[in-house]
Amino acid sequence: MTAGLYVTVEGLDGSGKTTQLERLAAWLTDAGHTVVATREPGGTEVGQLVRDIVLHHRGDIAPRAEALLFAADRAHHIATKVRPALERGEIVLQDRYIDSSVAFQGAGRVLDPEEVRRVSEWATDGLYPALTVLLDLDPSVARQRIDAAQKVFDRIEAEAVEFNQRIRAAYLGMAETEPQRWLVIDATLPPDEIAAAIRERVMSLLATRSVVRGTP
Amino acid sequence: MTAGLYVTVEGLDGSGKTTQLERLAAWLTDAGHTVVATREPGGTEVGQLVRDIVLHHRGDIAPRAEALLFAADRAHHIATKVRPALERGEIVLQDRYIDSSVAFQGAGRVLDPEEVRRVSEWATDGLYPALTVLLDLDPSVARQRIDAAQKVFDRIEAEAVEFNQRIRAAYLGMAETEPQRWLVIDATLPPDEIAAAIRERVMSLLATRSVVRGTP
Repeated sequence: MTAGLYVTVEGLDGSGKTTQLERLAAWLTDAGHTVVATREPGGTEVGQLVRDIVLHHRGDIAPRAEALLFAADRAHHIATKVRPALERGEIVLQDRYIDSSVAFQGAGRVLDPEEVRRVSEWATDGLYPALTVLLDLDPSVARQRIDAAQKVFDRIEAEAVEFNQRIRAAYLGMAETEPQRWLVIDATLPPDEIAAAIRERVMSLLATRSVVRGTP
Repeated sequence: MTAGLYVTVEGLDGSGKTTQLERLAAWLTDAGHTVVATREPGGTEVGQLVRDIVLHHRGDIAPRAEALLFAADRAHHIATKVRPALERGEIVLQDRYIDSSVAFQGAGRVLDPEEVRRVSEWATDGLYPALTVLLDLDPSVARQRIDAAQKVFDRIEAEAVEFNQRIRAAYLGMAETEPQRWLVIDATLPPDEIAAAIRERVMSLLATRSVVRGTP
């Protein structure tokens, strides 16, 4: 429906999303494409304000309120940044999207994952990426990586490894249900191999896109 | 389902909601009831942060994002303040609720009012008041009252009178559909008369509640 290409990356914190997104952006830019690198939550100014509430509020936030805050960030981000870029024919590379909400707020907390998805689909008017890369990682390995980087934990990072096991299972379940959209990669592979696997899938999508756009 | 009594008040800014809520609260407190006076948006600490984003952000906020921010405020407010009070058997008096979102974000803006209602119903897990008072007022009169009070206009108050005509029509349409929940009062009546009409309906609800609670 849109001229651009929309790619999202999912995975636990510590799975290497940032590294792979940067490498993919650099490769696409070198090839002459216009790339918009963005993320959720917090990909817009309004989103930053929302992200601050969700991640750093000292008191508890009711589960439905948290899901709705993420959905609000998403609605604004998609309407003001992602859709306009795709309509200009650009490539949008995004760190986390609807699938994060379904995995984290749905499978991980007390909410029905399908209800959480419906709220996000209303937020975005049903926009889905052509490709979602899952950097799949065992939570105990993810934990070691975060510890090694000595990052300051925010409220969500401080949750237990057991919680992350449920997230991982939710991601893998989604990927199995929609194999044409998902590319699942073992995040313990060497970064070069991971980058190559992502590039291969993106190249084939760009080729398809050219053909589709060339059709009168 | 709950032991308490939940009453909301709706109407345009300038319709006298604050005055009538204060009078009703004082009357009920004098009669020995425990009253929780609250409002949306902004009835909780998290809600205040959300309210700040919606009312005072300088840039535009995408319509679905705005509706979701109000819903997030609502979800947190109902879960942490309203439901606990009702379960303790208290009387909750609230300035604006779901009907405000349907009227303002739905009828007033570009969104489908029924979709906006569904999002709020998910936020609150379907909680509705026993009574909603509509202080019905012609928008040109509401405008004169606000001007007279020399209040600083926020982003939403600065919208035009024509916008408020659509809000008023939306309110009246809802009241017609659900007459057992709504009490529509002409807001140009003397404040004493308005207060008496509200008290009469609240008394009859309290009487019914006592009977229901007295049943074994």
